[in-house]
Formats: sequence, C-alpha cells, structure tokens
Amino acid sequence: MEPVFEFPIDFAGIGTSGQTGRTRLLHEQLRAAILDQRLRPGVELPSTRRVATAYGIARNTVIAAYDLLVAEGYVVTHAGAKATVADLGARPANKTARRSPRLEDDRLSPQWRLPAWTTTRYAADTWTPGFQLGTPEHRYFPFDIWRRLLTRAFNPRRPASFGYQDPHGRPLLRTAIAQHVSFARAVACSADDVIVTSGAQQAFDLLARMLVTPGRTKVAVEDPGYPPLRTAMAAAGAQLVSVPVDDEGLCVDQLPNDVRVVYVTPSHQFPTGAAMSLQRRAALLAFARARGAVIIEDDYDGEFRYGNRPLDALQTLDRDACVLYVGTFSKSLFPSLRIGYVVAPAWAREALAAVKQCADTTGNTQVQDALAQFILDGHLARYVRKMRKLYAGRRATMLDGIQRELHPWLEPIPSEAGIHLSARFKDTANASLFIAKARQHTPGALPLSNFAMARDYAEGIAFGFGCIDEAGIRDGLQKLRRSLRR
Amino acid sequence: MEPVFEFPIDFAGIGTSGQTGRTRLLHEQLRAAILDQRLRPGVELPSTRRVATAYGIARNTVIAAYDLLVAEGYVVTHAGAKATVADLGARPANKTARRSPRLEDDRLSPQWRLPAWTTTRYAADTWTPGFQLGTPEHRYFPFDIWRRLLTRAFNPRRPASFGYQDPHGRPLLRTAIAQHVSFARAVACSADDVIVTSGAQQAFDLLARMLVTPGRTKVAVEDPGYPPLRTAMAAAGAQLVSVPVDDEGLCVDQLPNDVRVVYVTPSHQFPTGAAMSLQRRAALLAFARARGAVIIEDDYDGEFRYGNRPLDALQTLDRDACVLYVGTFSKSLFPSLRIGYVVAPAWAREALAAVKQCADTTGNTQVQDALAQFILDGHLARYVRKMRKLYAGRRATMLDGIQRELHPWLEPIPSEAGIHLSARFKDTANASLFIAKARQHTPGALPLSNFAMARDYAEGIAFGFGCIDEAGIRDGLQKLRRSLRR
Repeated sequence: MEPVFEFPIDFAGIGTSGQTGRTRLLHEQLRAAILDQRLRPGVELPSTRRVATAYGIARNTVIAAYDLLVAEGYVVTHAGAKATVADLGARPANKTARRSPRLEDDRLSPQWRLPAWTTTRYAADTWTPGFQLGTPEHRYFPFDIWRRLLTRAFNPRRPASFGYQDPHGRPLLRTAIAQHVSFARAVACSADDVIVTSGAQQAFDLLARMLVTPGRTKVAVEDPGYPPLRTAMAAAGAQLVSVPVDDEGLCVDQLPNDVRVVYVTPSHQFPTGAAMSLQRRAALLAFARARGAVIIEDDYDGEFRYGNRPLDALQTLDRDACVLYVGTFSKSLFPSLRIGYVVAPAWAREALAAVKQCADTTGNTQVQDALAQFILDGHLARYVRKMRKLYAGRRATMLDGIQRELHPWLEPIPSEAGIHLSARFKDTANASLFIAKARQHTPGALPLSNFAMARDYAEGIAFGFGCIDEAGIRDGLQKLRRSLRR
Repeated sequence: MEPVFEFPIDFAGIGTSGQTGRTRLLHEQLRAAILDQRLRPGVELPSTRRVATAYGIARNTVIAAYDLLVAEGYVVTHAGAKATVADLGARPANKTARRSPRLEDDRLSPQWRLPAWTTTRYAADTWTPGFQLGTPEHRYFPFDIWRRLLTRAFNPRRPASFGYQDPHGRPLLRTAIAQHVSFARAVACSADDVIVTSGAQQAFDLLARMLVTPGRTKVAVEDPGYPPLRTAMAAAGAQLVSVPVDDEGLCVDQLPNDVRVVYVTPSHQFPTGAAMSLQRRAALLAFARARGAVIIEDDYDGEFRYGNRPLDALQTLDRDACVLYVGTFSKSLFPSLRIGYVVAPAWAREALAAVKQCADTTGNTQVQDALAQFILDGHLARYVRKMRKLYAGRRATMLDGIQRELHPWLEPIPSEAGIHLSARFKDTANASLFIAKARQHTPGALPLSNFAMARDYAEGIAFGFGCIDEAGIRDGLQKLRRSLRR
C-alpha cells in the first residue's frame, strides 16, 4: 500500500483507544506536520476515503480530524475543491469559524494554538525502565557525594549566592565545564566561552532565537533527527530544510547553498548512531566557511565512546568560529538535573547571554555550584569512566543479541558511541509487525521513522541500553525473537 | 538644562571609568532605547555637541557612541541631514557597513545583535547586601530543613525522578503551589491550573511567546514598570504600549482599545509600590472582557502585606478566564532557587506547557520535589509568617527614617506590601544630587526613572529593605541625610 502522507502516522500513542483517540492522534500528527511544514501551505490533503483505507481506520475518524483542522484554520476548503493546507503566515483572524475551545483560543499566538508535541511522553513515577532512548542508568550515581556537595552549596555566609546571578552561569561551573570538555572531548575552550543552560533543549531554544530571523533563516536538520530541536527552530520561525543522513552522517553535499544554520550530531547521529566521517566533517566546515553558515554541534552523549581514537569534534576542527558546541549532563549524569551548556565563539556570547537572561535569568545556583565541585573534584570523570565500562558491556550484549536473536530481521547500523543502538530492517515489509511486537517485548525501543521527516527513509528501530541491565537486554530480545517466530 | 533624551542616561554603571567606559554606557543605553522603542524609528538624534554639554562628557565620547550605533545599523545617516533612528523591522542586511565584531555579527538574528540588558548587574560573590530591590533576607531561612528535604528528594528507588519530566512541573509541587496560593492569596485554583517555571522571568517569557503574534500584538505595560518583562515582550515581537501608573496603580482609562495583553503588578506596583484600587481592578477586568484582552497579573511579593485586609487578586475577581496569574518564590524564599509559576485558565494551559517544553523541557526535579515537601509540611507558611514580621519591622524603620531624616526631600508613596518602599522627590530639581548621594550611602537604592519609559514621570527613588536589618537602614538613611545637609 502506497503511503498517503510523506511521513509516518502513528496510531499507537497514549489514550488512543476508540475513534475519539484515533481522531485526536491523526489530528495532532497532521497539525504537527503542518506546523513544521512537512505539509506545506497549499498542499492538497488526500481524500478521507484514501486515508481511512491506508491506515485501516474508520472514514468518520478521518473526517472528524479534518474537520478539526478546518475549524482551527490549519486547513482551508473551497467549494468543489480538495482541502488544502492553509498558509499560517498569512492567516487572518477567523473569529466566526467553528473551533474547539480546549485546543484553540484566538488569544494565543497562532503558532502555539495547537501544541505539536507536549505532555504525552513524560515519565510518571510509575514509569518502568526498559529500552528507552536517552535515559541513562542512575543506580550507580554517587548519591552520597552529590548530597554532600549540594548541602555544602547552601552556604548562608555567601549572601550573593541566594540572589540573582550572571546569565552566563556560575563562574566556577563554567570553569569546570571548560575543563571537562577540554579533557573529555578535546574541545578547545576556556570558562569565558561557556554558557550554562537548562539542559540541551534550552541551548537549542536560545540558539534558535538568537540565530533565526523569523520567516527568513533556513535551518538544515538531519533526517531522521531529533524532533525537539526541530520544534525549537520552528518556534523561532525557521524554515526547516530536511537533509538525509547515511552511515557517514549528514549528507553534506545535499545542503542547499542558502542554509544559514546546520544542526548535526556528529559523534553519534540521533537516532541512527552513525558517526560523521572526517571527510564529511571537513566538508561541513568548508560549507560553513564558504556560505557564512553556523553549525550547531550537538554532542549529547559524546562521553561514551567504545571504539578506537574518537574523531575530533567539529568545534575542535573549526578555524572560523562558526561552531556552537552543545553539551549536556543529561546522559553523563541524569536528565532531571537539567544542566547543559553551549561553548560559543566570541561573536555569539553576549547575544546568547542576553537571550538566556530574557528567557529565565539563570538556573538554580546551588545545583550549579554542586555540579562545579563534582567536576572539579574528579567525580564526574570517575563516574563517566565507570559508566563507560558498564555501558560497553550492555552495548556488546545488545549487539550480540541483535546479531544472534534478530538477524533474520535486523542489520545493526555501525556506531561507536552513546547509550542506544539502531538497526535497519532487512525487509521493510516486516517493519510494522516487528514494531508492534517490539512495543510489547522491548518497551521503550522506537521506530526510526518516529524521527523522520522524509518518507523514503529506510525503516529501522532504535534500542536504548542506558537504563536496562544485560540480563534485561538478553531477556527482552529473546522474548521478541520468540514472539516473531510464532 | 533641558534633557536631550526623553529618558535618563546613567553614567554610573560598572566599568565606567574613562572615555571608553562612558562611550560604552551611552552606546548601550541608546541601543536599549532604540530596541524597546523609547527612541522610535525615524526620530532624529540630538547633535553630539548638545549631548556632550547636557551630560558633561567629552564630545568624542558621544561621537564614538553614535559611530557604533551607525556601524551596527541602529542609526542611519544621510549626507547633510541629522542621524536618525533606523527602522529595525525593515532593516536590510548590510554587509558592507563597518561593524564592531564584538557586538554584532550578521549571523545573529537582528533583535539579538546587541544585547539590550545583560551581564552588567548581577551579583558577584563579593556583592554586599544593602538597599537592593527584590533581594530578600536569607539568613533566617531554615537551611537544615531544606537540606534534609533536598537530600530526601534524591531517592534512587524512584527511577522516573531522574528522567525527563512533565513540562507542567512535578505533580506534587503543582499541588503544593495550588494549596499555597489558595491559602496565601485566595487565588482560586487546583493543581491542574499550575505550571511551574524557572522563576517569574521564564513565566513572562513563555507567556510572551504564547500570546504575542510578532509585529501585531499590542502589549500594555506599566510606566514606570519592570524592565525584564518589557524585554521578554519585545523579544517576542510585541508592540509595547506604555501606560502611566498613579497612586491607584495602572491608569486603566488610558489603555488603547486594541491592546491584547495588559501586564500589571496590582498588589505592589513595581517600582512605585502603589496598590491597585478595587475600582481600577474592576475597570481592568471589564476592559479585558469587552476587548477580549488577557491580563498578566504579576504578584511577585504578594505574600508580604502589612495593612488591613488585602484586596483580592485579579485572578480571584476574574469571571472570564482572562487572567494569567504569575507567582514566584524569589521573594518568599530566594531568587537563586529559580522557581516561579503561572496559574493559567484552561484555554492557555496546553499551549503554555508546549512552549515550556520547547524552551527547556522542565526545571530541576529534585529542587521541585524538595520545595513541594517544604510547602506541604507547612515550612513555607511558617517562614513567610516569620519573615513578614521581620520585614514589617524593617519597613516601619524605613518609613520612619524617610519621614524623620529625609522629609525635606522625599514624600513616601503609599504602599502596603512587599520588600521595598518608594518615595517621590518634593522638588525634582534636587533629584540628581540626591541620587548621587544615595548611591554612596544607601547602595542598591534606585531612581524610579530607571524603570520609566516616559519622560514626564515624576521622579522618585526606591529603597529595598529585604536584605538589610533595621540598624543598617537607620544608619544608611542618617548618613544620607548628613551628606545632603552638607
């Protein structure tokens, strides 16, 4: 069956039972596609009948979803013509249109009338660790040391530490981060180059706001790639340009010349896991130099590398001050710490601090002070070393399991870093069955298409091994194999 | 001497010695004025000679500052004509113009090319408490209880608390905040209505992004008012409308009809301290109802009230779901905690969570969990009660000191809440001398004009009493009096 949209529609989210749930899912995914321009203004929507057939859902479900989009102004209809995607930029206020009051209110800025991705995929306290991507192990974290440092950070004799702070981040933490990335990633920087953020996501959001001129700036993103980055760029008014990735990372030769910002995950492409080759790195830097473009290098799990000598970071190779390096402690420590950072060239630093100050002034001071001491006392380096060993074991088990148990279906994508592993389907005809079974037996594993914008992306699946031990990995993969054999 | 700009220019910032420092200060303040449209596009700049004379600085200093503004594109010159403020909205990329590489780079989005306010006024660890505004006392904070709760929040048996979280904030904290504002401020809400932010500044920034359609939405702000709120609104592309305040708060009858968002500090106007009268509150709600406008109610220090029965919050009086109530723990606990919140009506909630998720996903989980327990165990209520008594004493000392020591110069502005107190000059001719002396003897006190957009605002001064004890207040005010008498 030929797909009717050039991107996957997933009917397996939360709260999807019944027609109402499926209507909501279809509506939300189409809306998201309109908002991030996978569905461009003026494009005709396929007929409700065709969509219903393609996805095996009731036609009324599709009609209801389309009606919502029309009511909200995302889709326009003309008598005797097919429904087309509205031009949101030019959309006039439409007070008389029917609308869903829960989802839309004309007091909201158009781009936020319908949240494209929110509040559906977070960890409740009943959450169970499994094959989730990007969730590290927390059980071996040195809680006692951390608690002691955090306790010490509340020092009543330092009155200034309770007041408002420098938007660049706490000075000692900037020093510690500079030391950490210089050592762990050979990133050339000093404390002055570092700006502390509330996780990598805030780094992306601040960079988007700082670099994008709404409606004008073209931003190239990896496809498949990291959706929250796309959201931040789209929210800032960027024109997103999808660029494919292969086993050497971003296909640099497919970058349009007028792209001003290029987002890449060179150490460990998200989600495929591929490392960007040195040739591609050089080509990307040459592109940036020639075109005056800026590169955002997202090194989200670069601390965990299992191969030989790692490739240099783009930031290390950069001679033209065009790389903005983004790091995070979400993988090396844990995500709910919410500390990330940007290593920024001089031209960007003050503007970045200004956006940070506008956005939230600073993050929590005591957590920053504790983390600074944690790094400077050598605890981070020790912990990363220990976890690298642990993750290396889990990764070997995962790779072995995929090759031994799942070789009829999967071909691992070469990768040397991080806390997840991806594989391609040998026969994409089996993809949807495989994904359905994986949802049951390796919960948290995700289809690569979840991260894709283009339709022709060769389908695969990503398994996280950050928060599951070797026995759990073996067990999950065996159960998956047995279930597939049945 | 007639002022040459319709807003004050301050030459007393950090790093202002010598001509370079003064050039930088003048340049930054003019740029800030252009960015927030106190200097509107097309306005002619006064001659460098006139500026030099007016502020008693070298003409070369003014020429250098103007040159920078021209180089950066903020000011345009035409042969034989005066320099005029550029139209930033329509500014074409100007690659051939001379530019200052430290301050501008055409890779930056135009609005962030020159940070309007950043990194100059933060607390270094050498900072000394004095008459600063908005800086609360920290010495009586129950550090032991807090450390214990924070230590407990790191619970390895709750794996989900180390992962990514709901962008609305931790469920227990939302419950605790709902309980706190219901009790302390009679704000009608449940946990579902609460969204946790990284301080009030993030609340303003998220609301700005959510409510403002760039270039279209008019946002009314108090004048004088809180500059970081204006920055967030301007960054989102709002058209700022300055509306005067008097001793009853915002002059509601001066709101233009096409304003879509109105920002107010009704409990304790920042910086004048005036409480908004009930008549004005009713008028503002009627305005919002009639015009479909939204009200942002900033209740930054509403926990500290010293008068009779406090006036109801706008949120409490609202029957049309048009009030977004913003609270913070920066005054009731301490600013570097970085926790604030929005109590939002249903129509705004999901969009707000979506912007939050785009902005930084969430704040630090363990700090949120500790704060939740701190509130639910009654520690916040106890601490606020204790501090209210302490601040009431300081406030009485401050008021007494102003009336006893400074009555020849100052007339206090009636006020019943908060941790600062403002007063008007009886004779504005003395204002600059007074301010210069105050800078020396009551460090941290600020001229009200620092917060004003309009030029005709009756000048005054604001003294904080959050982080200085009664002896310090008496001492500072006496020294100031003696110095003025000399």
